Amino acid sequence: MNATTEAKKLNEVITPVELLNHWQGHRNLTRRIISAFPEKELFTHRIGGMRTFAEMVMELLGIAGPGIKEIATGQQTELNEHFDHNNQKSNLLDKWDETTEIINRYWQQIGKENFHNKIKAFGQYEGTVLSTILYYIDNEIHHRAQGYVYLRDLGIEPPAFWDRH
Amino acid sequence: MNATTEAKKLNEVITPVELLNHWQGHRNLTRRIISAFPEKELFTHRIGGMRTFAEMVMELLGIAGPGIKEIATGQQTELNEHFDHNNQKSNLLDKWDETTEIINRYWQQIGKENFHNKIKAFGQYEGTVLSTILYYIDNEIHHRAQGYVYLRDLGIEPPAFWDRH
Repeated sequence: MNATTEAKKLNEVITPVELLNHWQGHRNLTRRIISAFPEKELFTHRIGGMRTFAEMVMELLGIAGPGIKEIATGQQTELNEHFDHNNQKSNLLDKWDETTEIINRYWQQIGKENFHNKIKAFGQYEGTVLSTILYYIDNEIHHRAQGYVYLRDLGIEPPAFWDRH
Repeated sequence: MNATTEAKKLNEVITPVELLNHWQGHRNLTRRIISAFPEKELFTHRIGGMRTFAEMVMELLGIAGPGIKEIATGQQTELNEHFDHNNQKSNLLDKWDETTEIINRYWQQIGKENFHNKIKAFGQYEGTVLSTILYYIDNEIHHRAQGYVYLRDLGIEPPAFWDRH
């Protein structure tokens, strides 16, 4: 078996581009969950003392762009889960779209050979590049699902979980 | 660069064993979320007309073991999201542990070279082996997060999201 065949065979589990597309598919759905909230309730509705969905979205925004930039550049970043959104859904969505571009841009700079490098994300969370990125994706699925419950609680039918476009 | 070096390099994004461990880590956490529910509310508590957490867990159980067995053996399976649990948490947990073993056993039979094969899961959902497995994991994170909201709504502090042991 030559290097190309071997590479093709071993490369078949998941490639960086597939992982990026997987995440951006999830991010498309999360964007539609944000959009589905009424303007007011996005910033006010809570269940069981939990955060509002806007606060969870700020966490996701604080992690995603800065987190991937930190991995790509190696420059340690402080975790910041707050920014000035003026209680406007459009400001969250604009930041979401900006983050989509940041992820796409910096992702290209993460060499495939670095996915098992050990890192300390945001200067404190130990893992590998891969485990950290999977954590970011899983954390988004987790909080978005809580947004689903908030929407149902508000009597709103959320977008289908399987639709990532 | 020889085949071994190339293989090592390309093999570094995610291996089948890493993906299995990733899922079983998530499944450990889901098990603890099931355990955290009071016996009665596991089968009765709802928000916004959604299913009980026990019903969501039955979906996860209906997918995980049969789904991996179907992928490993190529024998088409019908999706069954119900089984007789007698409103006993211990019955769900027993089935959970049984499923853990089924996943571990059949996972070994999925060759790495098959992860991009096209399949029709449960005879109806088109995708690749990889996209299907990722969907099963993501779907579990999604419903488990809804269990988190149910627990908070019941005044119960859930296990930490980052703890997978």
